[in-house]
Amino acid sequence: MWPDRVGVPAGRGPYSDRMLSSTPRTRHSRMKENGRTDPADLRAVLAAGRIAHLGVLVDGHPMVVPTVYGFDDERIYLHGSVASRSLTTGAEVCVTVTVFDGLVLARSVFEHGVNYRCAMIYGVPEWVRDDEAKRHGLRVLTEHVAPGQWDYARQPSRKELAATALLVLSLDEASVKVSDGPPDDGDSPDAALGLWAGRLPVVTTWGEPIPDPALPSGIAVPPHIAAREHTEI
Amino acid sequence: MWPDRVGVPAGRGPYSDRMLSSTPRTRHSRMKENGRTDPADLRAVLAAGRIAHLGVLVDGHPMVVPTVYGFDDERIYLHGSVASRSLTTGAEVCVTVTVFDGLVLARSVFEHGVNYRCAMIYGVPEWVRDDEAKRHGLRVLTEHVAPGQWDYARQPSRKELAATALLVLSLDEASVKVSDGPPDDGDSPDAALGLWAGRLPVVTTWGEPIPDPALPSGIAVPPHIAAREHTEI
Repeated sequence: MWPDRVGVPAGRGPYSDRMLSSTPRTRHSRMKENGRTDPADLRAVLAAGRIAHLGVLVDGHPMVVPTVYGFDDERIYLHGSVASRSLTTGAEVCVTVTVFDGLVLARSVFEHGVNYRCAMIYGVPEWVRDDEAKRHGLRVLTEHVAPGQWDYARQPSRKELAATALLVLSLDEASVKVSDGPPDDGDSPDAALGLWAGRLPVVTTWGEPIPDPALPSGIAVPPHIAAREHTEI
Repeated sequence: MWPDRVGVPAGRGPYSDRMLSSTPRTRHSRMKENGRTDPADLRAVLAAGRIAHLGVLVDGHPMVVPTVYGFDDERIYLHGSVASRSLTTGAEVCVTVTVFDGLVLARSVFEHGVNYRCAMIYGVPEWVRDDEAKRHGLRVLTEHVAPGQWDYARQPSRKELAATALLVLSLDEASVKVSDGPPDDGDSPDAALGLWAGRLPVVTTWGEPIPDPALPSGIAVPPHIAAREHTEI
């Protein structure tokens, strides 16, 4: 049935150059065929996503908040203001990045599903306090979401840096799942029903830039932004 | 800075015909200007989204898993298999649905942000056990993601129904935030920098249906699927 395809990475595992996933929760106990163990797959999912869902505990209950993010070879950076009220120092979080690639439309409702790429990262995040580390993290975050803007726009002042709460989380413990196939009831008795089956892809692109109404005339869209129009996110 | 725009609904509140948000965590303590208190706004976000992020506690730590969902006037339905291993009966969850609408590109990095619609629903979910209730929930879920497929595809047998774990959660306690404006540094000293500023929208559409390679020739894409091509998700 539907969300059987939106698999849950189920274990825990040290991240290394060779393998993701060996702790109980990053080990793939369900939908093993969708599990990925190459760190390059983790980076590919993080590179394709734009919004992360950060799971924190608040008063003993889970809270899931969306936020933009950036990452480098070893860490993912998240804006901390979303969690600053709620995040307990030293507490574990789960950061999930999901890219929704399309629907799998099968002959039976039971075999319907979703194609997706999903990364889940577990760990205890830290606040970035050092100015230079914060500047690095913010640059990484900005350049992931809006490449070119770090150098084009005015960079943060010391005061702005101080006013910015930035979280960093190691990529050490992560789990990746990818589902990208056609329906799998093509050789089932349902195939005799003569129904159409296949995939309905999701296409996500950047649209046409919309100038700020406050912008004076004569300021053109800079090339690094204009070039994104109609490109895939 | 960036994710200040990805606000966190911060309180708790009984959902009624008049108002969302009056418990501490659904009350909007941050980014009040983005808060919404009309249940119609909740339904609008749920109608626009396709993937929910379900936050559960596993061994005392948060886990965030993506899943498709459907909803009716009073409840949201989630496929339970993603949580079946991990979900403790009687434990609270948080279900977050986020629609990413675009980037807010300001004159300063500090004022960059994201336009989005976000709904967060809190509560203790239940397993749907009754066959007819399960059929209703699965129909709602299927029709939200793939309208027309419930009637077109083969519906679940009793055995398939029994094999499907479906979660239901009341929409009583929910929080909605929407951010949709232009950059707000148009009247700041940074406006004198002469930089372009504005929005870069995200455009998400359904692509061209891809037939299952196992499909015999001569089975056309049915109208309810063909009609979705190039339409907005």
